[in-house]
Amino acid sequence: GKVFKKGVSFGDTDGTGLKVGIVHARWNKEIIDALVAGARKSLEAAGVRMIQTVEVSGSFEIPYAAKALIEKGDYDAIICIGCLIKGSTMHFEYICEAVSQGIMRLGLESGVPCIFGILTCLTEEQALERAGLTANGHNHGDDWGTAAVEMAMIKKANRL
Amino acid sequence: GKVFKKGVSFGDTDGTGLKVGIVHARWNKEIIDALVAGARKSLEAAGVRMIQTVEVSGSFEIPYAAKALIEKGDYDAIICIGCLIKGSTMHFEYICEAVSQGIMRLGLESGVPCIFGILTCLTEEQALERAGLTANGHNHGDDWGTAAVEMAMIKKANRL
Amino acid sequence: GKVFKKGVSFGDTDGTGLKVGIVHARWNKEIIDALVAGARKSLEAAGVRMIQTVEVSGSFEIPYAAKALIEKGDYDAIICIGCLIKGSTMHFEYICEAVSQGIMRLGLESGVPCIFGILTCLTEEQALERAGLTANGHNHGDDWGTAAVEMAMIKKANRL
Amino acid sequence: GKVFKKGVSFGDTDGTGLKVGIVHARWNKEIIDALVAGARKSLEAAGVRMIQTVEVSGSFEIPYAAKALIEKGDYDAIICIGCLIKGSTMHFEYICEAVSQGIMRLGLESGVPCIFGILTCLTEEQALERAGLTANGHNHGDDWGTAAVEMAMIKKANRL
Amino acid sequence: GKVFKKGVSFGDTDGTGLKVGIVHARWNKEIIDALVAGARKSLEAAGVRMIQTVEVSGSFEIPYAAKALIEKGDYDAIICIGCLIKGSTMHFEYICEAVSQGIMRLGLESGVPCIFGILTCLTEEQALERAGLTANGHNHGDDWGTAAVEMAMIKKANRL
Repeated sequence: GKVFKKGVSFGDTDGTGLKVGIVHARWNKEIIDALVAGARKSLEAAGVRMIQTVEVSGSFEIPYAAKALIEKGDYDAIICIGCLIKGSTMHFEYICEAVSQGIMRLGLESGVPCIFGILTCLTEEQALERAGLTANGHNHGDDWGTAAVEMAMIKKANRL
Repeated sequence: GKVFKKGVSFGDTDGTGLKVGIVHARWNKEIIDALVAGARKSLEAAGVRMIQTVEVSGSFEIPYAAKALIEKGDYDAIICIGCLIKGSTMHFEYICEAVSQGIMRLGLESGVPCIFGILTCLTEEQALERAGLTANGHNHGDDWGTAAVEMAMIKKANRL
Repeated sequence: GKVFKKGVSFGDTDGTGLKVGIVHARWNKEIIDALVAGARKSLEAAGVRMIQTVEVSGSFEIPYAAKALIEKGDYDAIICIGCLIKGSTMHFEYICEAVSQGIMRLGLESGVPCIFGILTCLTEEQALERAGLTANGHNHGDDWGTAAVEMAMIKKANRL
Repeated sequence: GKVFKKGVSFGDTDGTGLKVGIVHARWNKEIIDALVAGARKSLEAAGVRMIQTVEVSGSFEIPYAAKALIEKGDYDAIICIGCLIKGSTMHFEYICEAVSQGIMRLGLESGVPCIFGILTCLTEEQALERAGLTANGHNHGDDWGTAAVEMAMIKKANRL
Repeated sequence: GKVFKKGVSFGDTDGTGLKVGIVHARWNKEIIDALVAGARKSLEAAGVRMIQTVEVSGSFEIPYAAKALIEKGDYDAIICIGCLIKGSTMHFEYICEAVSQGIMRLGLESGVPCIFGILTCLTEEQALERAGLTANGHNHGDDWGTAAVEMAMIKKANRL
């Protein structure tokens, strides 16, 4: 087949004056720490100075905590970060589905963009790679930070 | 088994005076560009002169941006364009499901028809083919543009 | 194992005075035409005289058009007719799921019964058979028409 | 592995004064009749005297009819009874999913407990067994009747 | 691949003054009893003195009973405990999906955090292990109790 350029590129994003929340799970801490650091780094590179972080136990708790943050006030975007890895029961499948539907729903209902930063991996190796912790890995947190700024700009533009 | 004519045919569609939004992801840019161009071409062929395009990072962001556009005002239809290709994690499955449910929901709740222009492919070759970029390919964007005009006419007819 | 009588039987249904909408997709036209004719025939056999048909491009558009029809006014039941056949991408799966959930939801929220007349087939042969277009086939449209009359009667009975 | 006692046991349940609705599909009539009789028997054994039965064509219609019954008035619980058996198309999967989500949703939104009495079987033998129609079978309708009484008591307790 | 520390750790959690509900199913009683005891133990260790327990038949009934409890009044968190084990029909899959979506939805809509304490196991051995009833098992109820306290604190913090 034909080859095409994969991945995503961003234009200039200016996050000056934005307030962004990061809600993350604690499960698989090494992965999470790297992803949160990546998101924070790209938020700061875009000029975001107000970043609030909330920590919960597992990914299932993320939509609730994200909603609580939104109701507390005045966020321009929320980044939801978790890392689910397939285990021997069906826990992975039902959590992944409930959380992805929950975050989608929260964004549509609250009017605040909620970035889906949940890794849904079949192996630990996949998670490490997507957290930038392997030789050829890329930290997806970087992209989520930039996406949050971009979505916040769409939110502001359309509300004016 | 018996053979039957596949595919879909449209009658005359008149898009004069309609205002249509296109919300598209940037991931897999070559595919997206072709699909957006195809949609725009068929919109223009139907007489649509007001076309607004909004670009987001990934397909998960599309329903939020589509809703923001709808709230900004007065759109007759929105075309949601993305291209998801199966990778090694389960990201594809959960994004596809959340986005398809999100777009369905947005159409039902907002009263503005939202065309599902999300390719959910297992290979890159499938995506190229559906963007009209292979020898025997067909650009699905063409159909989405025509469908948007048709649905906008249903919206207007039923609101009178 | 023990054998039991399969299928479904209806008692007498009286559709006099009912107003029924048929919303159908155009994809796989030969199948659709047979199903719509079957539904119309059984509606008429039950005494229904007011039948409005709306045509859309694909099955994803059906819930939106059904809702538009319901809002326009005073329908006792809507029959949603489409024919989805498994292809090489995952399009089939995500459309089937979004449409089935959309129709379920529309019925519950609108208060107007919405009959699920969507074939979700793995082969064309299966679709032809369920449209009554093969030797041993049965036109499911017949059942959907009768079910629509029955559900309209439940709607009326419970609203008095 | 260790062995543990499976199944479910109920304490004393008192259904005196309760009003319970049974909404059932007609498909696979022999199975359904046994399940409905089982539910009715356990309701009566618990002292329930007001039992209203509504019959619909297929399981997809159950949530709508259950909602209509709830709106008509004053039910303490609804038992939803259907029997879906896997066939050659994907009809089974999409109906099962839409109906289970529909019944869950109806219970949460209406405030009236809706018992999930839908068999989702891969073979006819499995359905016969769960309707108590095989030598070693158990009629699940018995359990649904008892569960309905118990849930009605929870509803009443929490509303006082 | 690289190794990373799995599991989850909690900081200090102070449950003094909190009111927590436990809603649990009765199916697979030995498992459930262990999980409920584990949750209760960690709640008490965190200083929670007001714990209300509600028992229902199966996991499908849990979201309804949890909502009834929330409406009765003033809970800071609800722990939903059930144990589903894969059987020969598709009952497991549809119950798991409806319950996980139901609990997610209830948390988002009610404003009260609902902990997902539903085991979704393919074998009995997996359930025994996650209830701490095997040699190398860990009682997941412990984690759910701690998570409930933590989420209640997030709820309170964001409401002030």
